[in-house]
Amino acid sequence: MVKIGILGAAGYTGGELIRLLINHPQAEIVFANSESNAGNKVYDVHEGLLGETDLEFTSEMPFDQVDVVFFCFGHGKSEAFLKEHEIPANVKIIDLAQDFRIKGDHDYVYGLPETHREEIAKCQHLANPGCFATCIQLGLLPLAKAGLLTKDIAVNAITGSTGAGQKPSATTHFSWRDNNFSVYKLFTHQHLHEICQTLNELKPAEAPHVVDTLDEGYEADGITVDFIPYRGDFPRGIFCTEVVTLNERPVESDLIALYKTFYQHAAFTHYSDKALDLKQVVNTNKGLVHVEVFGKKVVITSMIDNLLKGAVGQAVQNMNIMFGIDEKAGLNLKASAF
Amino acid sequence: MVKIGILGAAGYTGGELIRLLINHPQAEIVFANSESNAGNKVYDVHEGLLGETDLEFTSEMPFDQVDVVFFCFGHGKSEAFLKEHEIPANVKIIDLAQDFRIKGDHDYVYGLPETHREEIAKCQHLANPGCFATCIQLGLLPLAKAGLLTKDIAVNAITGSTGAGQKPSATTHFSWRDNNFSVYKLFTHQHLHEICQTLNELKPAEAPHVVDTLDEGYEADGITVDFIPYRGDFPRGIFCTEVVTLNERPVESDLIALYKTFYQHAAFTHYSDKALDLKQVVNTNKGLVHVEVFGKKVVITSMIDNLLKGAVGQAVQNMNIMFGIDEKAGLNLKASAF
Amino acid sequence: MVKIGILGAAGYTGGELIRLLINHPQAEIVFANSESNAGNKVYDVHEGLLGETDLEFTSEMPFDQVDVVFFCFGHGKSEAFLKEHEIPANVKIIDLAQDFRIKGDHDYVYGLPETHREEIAKCQHLANPGCFATCIQLGLLPLAKAGLLTKDIAVNAITGSTGAGQKPSATTHFSWRDNNFSVYKLFTHQHLHEICQTLNELKPAEAPHVVDTLDEGYEADGITVDFIPYRGDFPRGIFCTEVVTLNERPVESDLIALYKTFYQHAAFTHYSDKALDLKQVVNTNKGLVHVEVFGKKVVITSMIDNLLKGAVGQAVQNMNIMFGIDEKAGLNLKASAF
Amino acid sequence: MVKIGILGAAGYTGGELIRLLINHPQAEIVFANSESNAGNKVYDVHEGLLGETDLEFTSEMPFDQVDVVFFCFGHGKSEAFLKEHEIPANVKIIDLAQDFRIKGDHDYVYGLPETHREEIAKCQHLANPGCFATCIQLGLLPLAKAGLLTKDIAVNAITGSTGAGQKPSATTHFSWRDNNFSVYKLFTHQHLHEICQTLNELKPAEAPHVVDTLDEGYEADGITVDFIPYRGDFPRGIFCTEVVTLNERPVESDLIALYKTFYQHAAFTHYSDKALDLKQVVNTNKGLVHVEVFGKKVVITSMIDNLLKGAVGQAVQNMNIMFGIDEKAGLNLKASAF
Repeated sequence: MVKIGILGAAGYTGGELIRLLINHPQAEIVFANSESNAGNKVYDVHEGLLGETDLEFTSEMPFDQVDVVFFCFGHGKSEAFLKEHEIPANVKIIDLAQDFRIKGDHDYVYGLPETHREEIAKCQHLANPGCFATCIQLGLLPLAKAGLLTKDIAVNAITGSTGAGQKPSATTHFSWRDNNFSVYKLFTHQHLHEICQTLNELKPAEAPHVVDTLDEGYEADGITVDFIPYRGDFPRGIFCTEVVTLNERPVESDLIALYKTFYQHAAFTHYSDKALDLKQVVNTNKGLVHVEVFGKKVVITSMIDNLLKGAVGQAVQNMNIMFGIDEKAGLNLKASAF
Repeated sequence: MVKIGILGAAGYTGGELIRLLINHPQAEIVFANSESNAGNKVYDVHEGLLGETDLEFTSEMPFDQVDVVFFCFGHGKSEAFLKEHEIPANVKIIDLAQDFRIKGDHDYVYGLPETHREEIAKCQHLANPGCFATCIQLGLLPLAKAGLLTKDIAVNAITGSTGAGQKPSATTHFSWRDNNFSVYKLFTHQHLHEICQTLNELKPAEAPHVVDTLDEGYEADGITVDFIPYRGDFPRGIFCTEVVTLNERPVESDLIALYKTFYQHAAFTHYSDKALDLKQVVNTNKGLVHVEVFGKKVVITSMIDNLLKGAVGQAVQNMNIMFGIDEKAGLNLKASAF
Repeated sequence: MVKIGILGAAGYTGGELIRLLINHPQAEIVFANSESNAGNKVYDVHEGLLGETDLEFTSEMPFDQVDVVFFCFGHGKSEAFLKEHEIPANVKIIDLAQDFRIKGDHDYVYGLPETHREEIAKCQHLANPGCFATCIQLGLLPLAKAGLLTKDIAVNAITGSTGAGQKPSATTHFSWRDNNFSVYKLFTHQHLHEICQTLNELKPAEAPHVVDTLDEGYEADGITVDFIPYRGDFPRGIFCTEVVTLNERPVESDLIALYKTFYQHAAFTHYSDKALDLKQVVNTNKGLVHVEVFGKKVVITSMIDNLLKGAVGQAVQNMNIMFGIDEKAGLNLKASAF
Repeated sequence: MVKIGILGAAGYTGGELIRLLINHPQAEIVFANSESNAGNKVYDVHEGLLGETDLEFTSEMPFDQVDVVFFCFGHGKSEAFLKEHEIPANVKIIDLAQDFRIKGDHDYVYGLPETHREEIAKCQHLANPGCFATCIQLGLLPLAKAGLLTKDIAVNAITGSTGAGQKPSATTHFSWRDNNFSVYKLFTHQHLHEICQTLNELKPAEAPHVVDTLDEGYEADGITVDFIPYRGDFPRGIFCTEVVTLNERPVESDLIALYKTFYQHAAFTHYSDKALDLKQVVNTNKGLVHVEVFGKKVVITSMIDNLLKGAVGQAVQNMNIMFGIDEKAGLNLKASAF
C-alpha cells in the first residue's frame, strides 16, 4: 500500500487525484493538504465524492507518514515550496507543475512513460509532463525517433476549459465560452520548452535540431514546432493535429507500422486505424493516435484527457511505475463516452 | 430621433442595449457611461460591435443632451445613484434594476406592456420588469385576470447563465456549468415580489389573494406561487412551466381562446398551438405561451430571451411606447434559431 | 466469475454495459450479440473501448455458456424475443426494457435495490427500472413509506439526450438541441406506471391511493403524480424536483432524518446536506437526494446518471445482488466531475 | 421592392433566408417552395418565425411573378433542376449550392463581394460561395493579391454543426457531438476547388500556381492549401487559422496595413486589431480577420457565421448588389454575443 500526501488538494488536479486514488487498490491517501479548506470534508469541495470518502482537508503535512507527495500547486510554486519546507529524502515527489520539467540543476525525471519509463522506475523525484506537451509528443515521438522530422511542424491543438484551472476568469465564463472558439498564446505556448527538449533527446544525431523558438528565436538553425493552441467549448480533453512534411512521399503502411511498433508496449497509448473523436479518451488515461498521408505530408491526430493522461492520470501512472506496481492500477477508467 | 444616455454601459445589459440601439431607426446614443472604461471603444468590451460603431465609453453624463436615460446598474444602485445625482425632470428614466418595481413612495410605472401599456405611454419614470418575472407573468396573466387562480401554483423556470451577470463566479465557470444542472433560491427568488404584485392587481376582487411568501410568510391567507428556479447550461433564455389547478375541469379550447384573446394586441407575445422549444425566442424580443389541460390541471409553458424580452428588449419596447414610436421599432430581430 | 451474455449489444445501453463489465472483477462477457454488427470489433461501435478489449460482436447466442443474459433491446422487444427463443431455466435474465416492470402474469422482480433488495437476491428474472422512474422514486420513497404522500405531487425532471437512444432524430440533432430546452409527454410519461406501482406498494394501508392517471384517468379516487419531463441540453443525467404538500408543517430535521435512515444501507443512494448539482452523479452509479421545507411544502431534489443508476449501472448492481457478489463490484466509478 | 422566390425553402438555408428576408426593407417573398411542406405555415418548420409571418410553403413556382430565385437545394441539385425547368431569362438566379462555383460552360459569377463586386453587380446568375471557402479566402485574399503566397499554406478551420445540414446523422447526434471534437475530409474538402480558383485569379502572374490537389494531385507544380476541417461542438460559425510562410521576415505593421487597405471598402469584412473569438460574428453577416507575425511566418485568424456570411447572408448581400440596393439592407443583424 503506497502511502500518499497531497499538497494543493483543493484545486482541480488535487480533486481529480483524490477521485482516482480512493479507488486505487494499492494506494492510501494519508493527508490532503489545503490551508484554506482545513477541516472541511473533501466532498464539500470536489464534485462527486459524497458517499465515497469521509476524508477531510488538513493544514498539516506529516511527511514522515507517507511514501510519496504529489505537488498539485500552480506553476512556479513547487520550487518556492521546497525552499521553505524540508521533505525527507526517502519520500518521493511527483510534481504536476512545470517547475522541473526542463533539465537543469535538479534530479527530477521527466515523467513521460512512453519515452522515459526506465528512468521513471528508478527516480525519486518526478516532473509530470504538461497536458498539451503530452498530447503533442504522443503524435510526434515515433517520427522524431525515426529521424523523420526534417521540416517545420504545424501543430494545432484544442483544449478544454479545465486546462485553465479552477479560478473563474473572463475566458472561462460560461456565457462567453459556450459555443465560442478562440486562439491564445499563438506560437508562444510555454509547453514548447518540454516538447522541444524531448524531440531533441529522441532524434538521431544527424536529424536537424528542433528550435525552441521561445528561447532561441526564429533565426536559430533548425526546424520549428509551430503550435497554435485553441480554446474549445468543452471542459475536458485535448485534440491535436500535427502536420509533418517528409523529404519523400512515404508508404502509409510503413508509417502506421512505425507508430504501432513504437506504442506496442505502452500501457495507455494506442494507435487507432480509424479517425478519432475526442470523447473516446475523455475520462480515461488513454492516448490515441492516428495517421494519414497526403503526398509528402503526414497528418497525425492525437488526443488525451487533459486532466488524466495530461495531468493526474499520468501522475498516478508514474507513481505506479515508481513503486513497481501494475502500471494500470487504479487507472482502468470507464470512458464517459457521452 | 430619441436621444439616449446609458449608465452602466459596460455590463451585460448595457452591451445588449447598445447592440439594439445602434440599429434602431429612431434612436441615437448620445452617451454610454462607464467610469472604468472611459475612452475605450465600445467594441473593445462588447462582442460583435466591431465594424458597427465607433462609439466610445465616457465618464461624462450630459443629461441635458438626452431625452431618456437607461439605468443598467446592478440591483440596488439605481436608488443610490439618484440620491447623489440630479436628472432633469424632462428626461425620462428607464431603470433595468429592481429598485422601483414594487409600488411605493415613487412614481415609477411597472413596465410590462402586456398589462400596463397605457400607464407606460404616459409615464416619465419606468421600472423594467425582471426576467423570471416577465416570463412567469406571461404564463399566468390571462388566468389571473379571469379569476382562475384559486389554488397554489407550481412554477418551474430554467434560466441561462447570462441571468447571473458578467462577473465570473463558481456557478458561471464553464468547467462547472457545462452539461450541469442545479436549483437555487428554492421558493425564495426575489422576483416573487413583482409577480405577486401584478397577479393581485389583475385578479377580480373575489379571487383569493396571492401571498408574497417572502413578505407575508406561508401562514398568510391566500394562494402561493411555488417557484423553483433552475440554472440551465445555456447562456440565453428562460423556459418556464406553470401548473395551475382549477376548481373544475375546463374545456381546453376555452382556455386557449382566453390566452389568444388576452395577447391579441401584444406586439411580441404570442400563443403557440404547438409545444415550444426555447430557441424559438432566443435572440428575439418575443414571448411565447402554450397551454395543455389534464383533468382540472392546466399546464402552461412560457418562454422569453432573458436579456431581451426579459431585460433590454422590453426596455426598448417600453421606450418606444413612452415616446409614441412604433412599438416594434428596432426590435425586429432575427432569431438565432441554432 | 459470472458469465454473461448480452443481447442488443450495439445500442447505447449495450455499449455502456460492456464498458462496465470489462472492468468488473467478477464478471466475464461470453457473448455480445448484435446481428447487424456480427464480426465487428466492439470498439468500432462503442466509444472509448479501443485498447481495452478485443471483444467482437457475434450473431450467436450460446445461452448454455452463460449464467445471466442482459436484454438491451428497445422497449417491447423483450417479450417478443422470449416468445421466439428459449433461454434455459438456470440462466438468469436482466431485462433493461419496460416489458416486465409492471406486475402481471410473469415472475420478473422489479429491480430497485433501495426497496426490493431481498426479492432481487432470490430472483431468477429481473425487470430493471426506468431512468426517470428510478430518479423520481428515490426522491419520494421515504415519504411514501412514512405515509406522508397525501396530496398531489408536482414532479419536474430534466433528462439528458442519451435517454432518447442512439437513433438520430429531430430532437437529438445537435443543431437543434444545443442550448435549447423543451418539454415532452407532459403528464403522460410511461414511467408513471412503475412509479405509481411502487408508491402504492410502499404506502401504509391508510394512506391515499396513488392514481396511475395513464390507466385510471384523472377522475379516479386518490392522489396524482403530476410529472413534467424536460429535454435538457446535456447528454447524461436526470435532475428532478418533487414538491410534496404535507398535512402539517413538518420539522425539517425530522424529515432529513427520515431520508437518512431510509438510505442508510443503500449502496449508492445518499442524502446530501448541501444543494445538488447534476455533475456530482454523472458517470457514476450514485443517486443523491436533498430536502428543503417551506411551510407545509417539502421540496426534494434527486438525481442520477440515466445510463448508469438509471439503466445499466443499476442492472449490474442487481446482477451483483442476484449472484451474491459485493453490491458495488465493478461500480466504483470515477465521476467525470467536469 | 425585389420580388423573391425560394426553392428548397424548408431546409436550413431556406429557413435562414426567410428569417432574413421578412425583415428586409426592400424585399418581398412571393413564394417559398417546398413540395413536402406545401400548405404548412413556414413557422411550423422554421424556428422562431411564429408571430412574424403567416407565409405558407407552396408547391408552386410562379417564376413570372418574381425578380430573383434563390436555389436552396442540396449540392448537385441545382443543375438537375435547371435541366427540367425553365426559368425566364429576366429572372435572376442566386444558387447557394456548389454546382456553378467553378468556371466552365455557364455564366454564373462567383459571388464573393470582396473580390468580384463589379461582376456581381452586372450578373444575371450567381453562384454563392461555400462557407469554408468564404472564411478561408477572407484570410488569404490580401496576401494572394500581393503575391506573397509562395509556400504551402497550413489551414485549420473549425465548423459548427449547421454546416452539416438538417438531416440527422451520427455526427450531428447531440449525444455524440456535445463536448466532442473531430476532423473529417482531411486535405480533401471539396471547397479547395473554389479556394484555389480565386487564389489563382488574384495572384500576380509571377507568383506560383496554387495547386488544386483534388484535381491535380500532390505532384503538380506549385503550392498547396493544406486544409484540415474540424467538427466543433457548436451550431454556428467557422473559425479558421491560416499559416503562411513568407520568403522574408515581414514588418508586421506593413502586413496589417495590407489587410486594412484590402478590406477598407468591404461592407461586412473588417480587420480587428485584437485577437478574435467566434461569437463576435455569430448571427451576423460579418467577417473578421486578424494577423500576427512570427519570424517569416504569418498567422491569420478569420471567422464568419457559416449560415450567414457563409451562405444566405452573403446571398442576400449579393442580391442587394445585383439589384443596386444598399449592400447592407436587411443585414444589420444583432450579434447573439452570448
